[in-house]
Amino acid sequence: MKQMQHTLTVRCRGRGAVNITRDIQQWISQNEIETGLLTLFVQHTSCSLMVQENADPDVLHDMEAFLSKLIPDGDPSFLHRAEGPDDMPAHIRMALTQTSLSIPVSKGRAMLGIWQAVYLYEHRSLPMNRQVMLHLLGT
Amino acid sequence: MKQMQHTLTVRCRGRGAVNITRDIQQWISQNEIETGLLTLFVQHTSCSLMVQENADPDVLHDMEAFLSKLIPDGDPSFLHRAEGPDDMPAHIRMALTQTSLSIPVSKGRAMLGIWQAVYLYEHRSLPMNRQVMLHLLGT
Amino acid sequence: MKQMQHTLTVRCRGRGAVNITRDIQQWISQNEIETGLLTLFVQHTSCSLMVQENADPDVLHDMEAFLSKLIPDGDPSFLHRAEGPDDMPAHIRMALTQTSLSIPVSKGRAMLGIWQAVYLYEHRSLPMNRQVMLHLLGT
Repeated sequence: MKQMQHTLTVRCRGRGAVNITRDIQQWISQNEIETGLLTLFVQHTSCSLMVQENADPDVLHDMEAFLSKLIPDGDPSFLHRAEGPDDMPAHIRMALTQTSLSIPVSKGRAMLGIWQAVYLYEHRSLPMNRQVMLHLLGT
Repeated sequence: MKQMQHTLTVRCRGRGAVNITRDIQQWISQNEIETGLLTLFVQHTSCSLMVQENADPDVLHDMEAFLSKLIPDGDPSFLHRAEGPDDMPAHIRMALTQTSLSIPVSKGRAMLGIWQAVYLYEHRSLPMNRQVMLHLLGT
Repeated sequence: MKQMQHTLTVRCRGRGAVNITRDIQQWISQNEIETGLLTLFVQHTSCSLMVQENADPDVLHDMEAFLSKLIPDGDPSFLHRAEGPDDMPAHIRMALTQTSLSIPVSKGRAMLGIWQAVYLYEHRSLPMNRQVMLHLLGT
């Protein structure tokens, strides 16, 4: 059994979901692991991980519209406002989605379903570079 | 350290939570792993995993009522409507619950709490066969 | 590759988030694992795990206010009411946050980001002792 780790840096242009599936699959294929387990962990508190449909971009649009309505930017009831109107909503969005994800690996690939992609969901408005830690274990 | 994988097929009769605890425990017991880690991963974008109470069926009723109200089927603001009024809500429900779950294994069993069950939560209205990938690692 | 498990007991004084980061890091450091994977699993259905900001306590206040408004205690539409007005909301809060978390370990520490803490989020009003199972794997 071998293990390896890697930090994936994801450039985000502001709020929205960035498809990181290809980066993940490429990293696995470089490591010569056929069968195992991949874990992703996001090292931030205002972005998160989401598995979501990879086909129709309207899905991401509707997801964003839903979250924006559920957790309004600049809600006057928030006490935590020093970092901007999108900051506390980002913390809540992150708590409601995923900080870590674990995906079985088979035949050298993360076993995503045919319609699945892994997204880094940036919840802040400004462009950010985000770090996703990858851990791979297997044979 | 050994590892093994299995695809569990879950028959869903439409929207609702299917208890898959017994299937999981049976699969672990077939693999002669005493101590380790079990990971579940759902290969879809309109169903998800949920750990929830195993005793009172009213809990699942209230959970479903809450989600139905929070994310109304057929919301006219959704752009993604081609696959039916329950499809975009299914994607949102899935993002708010779990795609993967990791559970320590001890004495040959997933160490669920006494009141816990693992559910495959189907979010679409029509009957579906769903795939849950299981990965077991241990000694 | 070695693995070890531990049950962390967390004393909660009622609803609210308890920072368990130090307990986790201490347990890892006792196990002489330099590189690996830590998994946390909560054995309950009315508390959960959350990674969240560790700096401004207003974040936890706003998080709690958001959840309290989204899922009102004593909602008369709930059928599951025998265990009190905060019980069904606790089950829903738990389904929307995390039951398990997986965090890569490097240099003998869980690789949390600089602003991240791991919280056990108690959703019931009464004081409770909660169990978090820890599983550590690595070299």
